[in-house]
Amino acid sequence: MNDAIQPILLAGRWQPSLEPAGTFRAADPTTGEAIGPAFPVSGAADIEAAVAAASVVAAELAATPPARIAAFLDAYADALDADADTLVALAHAETALPSPTRLRGNELPRTSGQLRQAAQAVRTYAWTQPVIDTAAGLRAHLAPLAKPVLVFGPNNFPFAFNAVAGSDFASAIAARNPVIAKAHPLHPATSQRLAQLAHQALLDAGLPPAAVQLLYQFDNALGLELAGDARLGAIGFTGSRAGGLALKAAADAAGIPFYAELSSVNPVFLLPGALAERGAALAQEFFASCTLGSGQFCTNPGVVVVPRGSDGDAFAGAATEHFAAAAPMVLFSRGGVDHLRRAVATLRQAGAELLAGGDAGEGAGFRYAPTLLSVDAADFLARPRALQTEAFGPVALLLRVADTDEMAAVARAFEGNLTGTLYRAADGSDDAAWQAVAPLLRARVGRLINSKMPTGVAVSAAQNHGGPFPSTGHPGFTAVGMPAAIHRFAALHSYDAVPDALLPPELRDANPGGVQRLIDGQWTSADVQVQA
Amino acid sequence: MNDAIQPILLAGRWQPSLEPAGTFRAADPTTGEAIGPAFPVSGAADIEAAVAAASVVAAELAATPPARIAAFLDAYADALDADADTLVALAHAETALPSPTRLRGNELPRTSGQLRQAAQAVRTYAWTQPVIDTAAGLRAHLAPLAKPVLVFGPNNFPFAFNAVAGSDFASAIAARNPVIAKAHPLHPATSQRLAQLAHQALLDAGLPPAAVQLLYQFDNALGLELAGDARLGAIGFTGSRAGGLALKAAADAAGIPFYAELSSVNPVFLLPGALAERGAALAQEFFASCTLGSGQFCTNPGVVVVPRGSDGDAFAGAATEHFAAAAPMVLFSRGGVDHLRRAVATLRQAGAELLAGGDAGEGAGFRYAPTLLSVDAADFLARPRALQTEAFGPVALLLRVADTDEMAAVARAFEGNLTGTLYRAADGSDDAAWQAVAPLLRARVGRLINSKMPTGVAVSAAQNHGGPFPSTGHPGFTAVGMPAAIHRFAALHSYDAVPDALLPPELRDANPGGVQRLIDGQWTSADVQVQA
Repeated sequence: MNDAIQPILLAGRWQPSLEPAGTFRAADPTTGEAIGPAFPVSGAADIEAAVAAASVVAAELAATPPARIAAFLDAYADALDADADTLVALAHAETALPSPTRLRGNELPRTSGQLRQAAQAVRTYAWTQPVIDTAAGLRAHLAPLAKPVLVFGPNNFPFAFNAVAGSDFASAIAARNPVIAKAHPLHPATSQRLAQLAHQALLDAGLPPAAVQLLYQFDNALGLELAGDARLGAIGFTGSRAGGLALKAAADAAGIPFYAELSSVNPVFLLPGALAERGAALAQEFFASCTLGSGQFCTNPGVVVVPRGSDGDAFAGAATEHFAAAAPMVLFSRGGVDHLRRAVATLRQAGAELLAGGDAGEGAGFRYAPTLLSVDAADFLARPRALQTEAFGPVALLLRVADTDEMAAVARAFEGNLTGTLYRAADGSDDAAWQAVAPLLRARVGRLINSKMPTGVAVSAAQNHGGPFPSTGHPGFTAVGMPAAIHRFAALHSYDAVPDALLPPELRDANPGGVQRLIDGQWTSADVQVQA
Repeated sequence: MNDAIQPILLAGRWQPSLEPAGTFRAADPTTGEAIGPAFPVSGAADIEAAVAAASVVAAELAATPPARIAAFLDAYADALDADADTLVALAHAETALPSPTRLRGNELPRTSGQLRQAAQAVRTYAWTQPVIDTAAGLRAHLAPLAKPVLVFGPNNFPFAFNAVAGSDFASAIAARNPVIAKAHPLHPATSQRLAQLAHQALLDAGLPPAAVQLLYQFDNALGLELAGDARLGAIGFTGSRAGGLALKAAADAAGIPFYAELSSVNPVFLLPGALAERGAALAQEFFASCTLGSGQFCTNPGVVVVPRGSDGDAFAGAATEHFAAAAPMVLFSRGGVDHLRRAVATLRQAGAELLAGGDAGEGAGFRYAPTLLSVDAADFLARPRALQTEAFGPVALLLRVADTDEMAAVARAFEGNLTGTLYRAADGSDDAAWQAVAPLLRARVGRLINSKMPTGVAVSAAQNHGGPFPSTGHPGFTAVGMPAAIHRFAALHSYDAVPDALLPPELRDANPGGVQRLIDGQWTSADVQVQA
């Protein structure tokens, strides 16, 4: 055990918090006991120093050659892979997520892969979308904000969404903006280790050392003040709806784009043919998806729409057996257990019936039993707000509907979600039901999924990990997938009558890198043809 | 003169306002006298009916074949051109903008051309940016919001930014969203005529008649309520900063993207070499740009940064002569005159010295004298907020600086603007000054201009009529230029494991239209190569 208060990464170096407002430690979720060293809760002095330092280097970073940014991202990715033993051990201790399958087998390679995809987008200018109009003398592209980006990391992905290593981080750096990372306080040692690797990679790449800073924790009032600081260029936030909306309001008032991933119940519709065809298999698939990672996924299937009748009853019965047979699952924190207690109480109060689970059950540490509830469509349509309460954990609600019309009615009642799923029969017998329901669901989700559970978010250029409000703050952007995720941290820049030599490289006549550009209405990777 | 209260275009037909809260008439700006018929001020009933009707047709419009949308946009453009005599006469009477040069020669063809560019983007799917990842089974594109878009038109472009004909309108319809148009109350008859043509074109194209609705006026409290109505998909606003920020706050609270064009002083930097080379010509060019359209442009050059010394003094002297010699100019409204009075008083109170003009002068109607002020950089840096007060009209402020360092200092003090301009010497002697100032200005503007005045906004794919807050509400989007302007009114949609037949046309394997797509990391207009 280390008695010293850990340093923060501030203004280009590891140093003690300037005026710490307190300290905190991580906990082992399986026992509830404090682990690891004490980390500082930052006060106003740290925050001011971080914003000031990031603001100073913003212009320098914006002017940095892309190759150097890409080299940093690649080197950082390599460092993550090389440090896997340490990183996985730290993250496992702080989150209790399974080491081999989840942390080492999936999340860490996903994180380093994401950094490498960002590097590739930087190197090829793919995220900048150059457009050239030779007749008008105008050239436009996406460019750095030239201001710091503040990133709030969530509790549920210690690597892939970590404020100092995840998609928001990679995207903001790829767009050549400094990052002020606010770690999630449930995994400070993991975040510290990541930041150490990032800092070393920055120094090796010759980037401004203050381009990446790390604070572990600060209180809500300071957070709101920071979110409204007009020196920021944008904010990336992944977390709870209440916290996110408060920060969004502060950012909105200062005109700061706020990219949030707030909450989502990810409705899954079981069309009648699919249910008849493979109801028992679907019950197993649903249970596995809902309880993966103890259900602590943004894309967890929280509401399953199930027709009434014998096939639906059989599905509900099989699902109930799965949930009832499973032991209580370890959550990240005491707060998470309390949240689930409240969410389940809200759902029951609004008319949902408990089929399985419903309490914390036995066992040390932070646990909650896999929990299944059920409600009729009429209740849901009468109290849609309460019955869409997100229960962040291994908890789901079956929503029983009479027919396709009622499926359409409940689809209309859903708020914006990250994902929406329809399970179809293999024999095409559900295609009319799909046509009736899918367009309604389509308008309310970012990713529409056919016959597959929503957990599992590929890092792909065609991904949308985003969706209509309130699942995120803007329906046009994704938090995952290069190069699109980078667009969030960019400004549109147009150049009017600016000579070739004074233009950014990807807007000049010559196109040695072969980036795809829209020139006079035609997509091409050729040079601009200069009139003789 | 028509005594009847004019109808509104509501729920698919021209009908009387349901419960009008009052009436108003346009005025002839040259005399101040009321002209034309009485138009209704809408109450809550009209607004509710408009939102309800638009919400009902939103899904139908989203599912409409793009060819039909394009046909509507083209037919509407043709109707504008064919109706030029009437439209120009109405707009001239209501705005006093010059008929031949501005309205008929420039703005009307720009407006119909913009509609045709939107039609072309629709027909080619160019705005949808399809991305396909065959290995991941993911396909993504930009898609309709499937909710109504509310558009507030400004006073200064009766055609090109009209809520029922301008860029926001064309963009929202191109993305297949219904439009609720809030006309500017200074040109109701022009807006009515445009809406008549739009309505007929809708009927001819077989689109839902409620896809376009028109309200002339409602009070601010109702406007704020409407802007926060979660049934809306997005809002386009062009107008004053105070009004825009109030509406933005209401929209933000409901998670509605608010695309605003709020205010901009469009700084122009005269680098020393350019001033020495052609100071007298620049004074003439500046005066012409500043007083074009009585200075009532969003891109009006409101602040000109001029070095001290004899060249700068000569420029200031020549500019002062131009401003002093010009007669008072006609503005759109009494409110516009009052606004200029207040703005000039604010600037003088903050330390600016009056060089020419400064009052309404002689003449009937709504007039203000071309007005030039001057201030030292030290004053500007001490009171940057007050000295960036936008004066919407033929008013500009000379900002005198000692050297390039002080140019850089004032560049750092500018808020977000639509444009920033640097005038360079032809002999390259200003290139060091450009390198010192341009990157600072670049980060603070949407369009960076070389040696040209900012008025004049080409409708081009490479345009950015946008900029950092507070010139607009989001730095990533342009209000002018197809296809980019359409992106504002779109949602990102991803499809996961969805079979070809259930995908939107531009995401299917076959690509008969030849739209450019990013397939497995390669840009191509070819079909997806299906594995044998």
